Amino acid sequence: MSRDVAIIGVGVNKWGELWEKSLRDIFVEAALAAIEDAGVDKIDSMYIGNMTAGLFTGQEHLASLLADYLGVAPIPAARVESACASGGLAVKMGYMDVALGMSDVVLVGGVEKMTDVGTDQATYALATAADQDYEVYNGITFPGLYAMMARAHMEKYGTTSEQLAQVAVKNHFHGSMNPVAQYPQKITVENVLNSVMIADPLHILDCSPITDGAAAIILCPLEMAKKISKKPAVKIIGIGHATDSIALHSRPDMTTLPATIKAAQAAYKMANIAPGDLDLLEVHDCFTIAELVVLESLGLFEKGKAAAATASGATTLGGKIPVNTSGGLKSKGHPVGATGVAQVAEIVKQLRGEAGPRQVKDARLGMTQNMGGSGGSTLIHIMEVA
Amino acid sequence: MSRDVAIIGVGVNKWGELWEKSLRDIFVEAALAAIEDAGVDKIDSMYIGNMTAGLFTGQEHLASLLADYLGVAPIPAARVESACASGGLAVKMGYMDVALGMSDVVLVGGVEKMTDVGTDQATYALATAADQDYEVYNGITFPGLYAMMARAHMEKYGTTSEQLAQVAVKNHFHGSMNPVAQYPQKITVENVLNSVMIADPLHILDCSPITDGAAAIILCPLEMAKKISKKPAVKIIGIGHATDSIALHSRPDMTTLPATIKAAQAAYKMANIAPGDLDLLEVHDCFTIAELVVLESLGLFEKGKAAAATASGATTLGGKIPVNTSGGLKSKGHPVGATGVAQVAEIVKQLRGEAGPRQVKDARLGMTQNMGGSGGSTLIHIMEVA
Repeated sequence: MSRDVAIIGVGVNKWGELWEKSLRDIFVEAALAAIEDAGVDKIDSMYIGNMTAGLFTGQEHLASLLADYLGVAPIPAARVESACASGGLAVKMGYMDVALGMSDVVLVGGVEKMTDVGTDQATYALATAADQDYEVYNGITFPGLYAMMARAHMEKYGTTSEQLAQVAVKNHFHGSMNPVAQYPQKITVENVLNSVMIADPLHILDCSPITDGAAAIILCPLEMAKKISKKPAVKIIGIGHATDSIALHSRPDMTTLPATIKAAQAAYKMANIAPGDLDLLEVHDCFTIAELVVLESLGLFEKGKAAAATASGATTLGGKIPVNTSGGLKSKGHPVGATGVAQVAEIVKQLRGEAGPRQVKDARLGMTQNMGGSGGSTLIHIMEVA
Repeated sequence: MSRDVAIIGVGVNKWGELWEKSLRDIFVEAALAAIEDAGVDKIDSMYIGNMTAGLFTGQEHLASLLADYLGVAPIPAARVESACASGGLAVKMGYMDVALGMSDVVLVGGVEKMTDVGTDQATYALATAADQDYEVYNGITFPGLYAMMARAHMEKYGTTSEQLAQVAVKNHFHGSMNPVAQYPQKITVENVLNSVMIADPLHILDCSPITDGAAAIILCPLEMAKKISKKPAVKIIGIGHATDSIALHSRPDMTTLPATIKAAQAAYKMANIAPGDLDLLEVHDCFTIAELVVLESLGLFEKGKAAAATASGATTLGGKIPVNTSGGLKSKGHPVGATGVAQVAEIVKQLRGEAGPRQVKDARLGMTQNMGGSGGSTLIHIMEVA
């Protein structure tokens, strides 16, 4: 039988345009914070989520580089990539390693250094998550892909630009209570609608930013966690991982995310829960429309109903099911490889009751949804207080 | 308890400058060959080793893309990277998945499409396996790094250019019997010594080539393998994975490979064997000097003795311990992410007795050693006929 796996440490430092720090600096800071939080004195192996350090910084072979800089080489270290879901993928790999009994203490990190290149190069690097031969060749970029999803959603369900803006307003409100958020400013629907149009109907305040940042968590067997940590043990009880065409045009319906649906079904089944049991979620709001489509694909709301639910406050702190209390990708920032790990870190902080002003009351059961590209891959993790 | 893991299918098609085929074509061909060889009718999950498709082809998010093109989406699919050891890393991840019981049938693939860019861009892309901030910034490339290792080895052990050339001659001899090899031409010591100097003392015929290629293997529980396949079951009995500084200048001794030493120790221990028990090996001869240093680091020969052993024919087919019967990276080619998977495929063919003219007689126990960069990561797998 496989072993139960717990998260005993998390580390996320201030995200932003960290020009004075290199990729390795940013990672080591987060890793040391997680190690200190966990109170462990050794690491047995390491997984690194990173999307495209090759294109952003000219550096591959990241896992060895970072193990060396953290001072933990020669331990096994692996970099994993699934575009913007690279962090979530790293969490899954770390889980497998501990569950199998190959390692006891595993550090899972995510890192991306995105601001060392100009906007054109960043746009090109991010577009490698889409189909190069068919989508990118024809000039599409990610704001354009999500804009098409938004237009289709508007057409099918009557979703409005104001409703998209409400997602951004909520997430910036949450982010205003998160000291590590890149853009902790509160914003209004009017701010969003008056901000520059990037790809109609998406304004710049509908888009997540370009971010330098890292996140790290420490995994170990649940039994060990209970022995060595005084903090509440957070157990991973569900994992879902699914793929889909990475090209948006290959999917039958642009208003739904089959990989998220499949991954959610697998995770709910493994955790033996229903969506309604969840106390909070972190989801992949790379664009405002993404959060709505994701919430519907996860089965939290019926198709076409997530926008109204958002407007009603159901997904705001204090609402029925708070979503993205960290500020989400929108306000906290989106260093792509780090995002999936940081989502898990937020759930752990919430389940431990350490989330300060953004604490969800009596949070016992939380979930993360992290996706790559326009939904070509999805990683889901469900966690509960053990 | 974890499950025993077997390899029941392998697929490697012709490698070379495959200008008429795209990355996805090359991968799908190898994957279908492996699936046919295994005789399975479903794949539960997939791992893809690839070093830097972002820099070579502008395409990340490879695992989802390839799952889609193979027609197996929405199964979980993950791309892993450890520079030139990406393929070996993918094999380890596949092993973990099956051993843990998350999946029954796992496809492990490796792929690299390297000839769609010019030589300058290829050299830049490969250099991302070295330390960008300290090594590459100062102008070093991989032939230069391995040339320094060769010079140090010559200085310390009296190794000669002729001895380095003998490694290439042996591997091209082996490759001449491998129908998928990129450069199956037999060569002589004189050919090597008269070939153009790339980085003194390494001539171009001391270097592995730039290659387009893919390889795939199918893993499943050993019990299942015995039920569904009529071919001899090949069991993975040892795995070693270790890291080191990716910067050569950070290591105390350039004539040895600490990550290979550590990984080998772990793999021998897990398999409960000694180096002398092995019937054959595939090792990472990205440059001729690499094969010698690797064989010494693996404990096959004492330090400084691998060159003389090579000259004596000990590592040639028919010798005491045949090394790189596939032709190695030198003759077969080195599509970096595919190499570690193809090494395993060669061992499987040998252990099954399917290696034709290059068959090692009575091969029962084989090993692969796959490393990243100048040795910053190493993956080792030991396999036996179950």
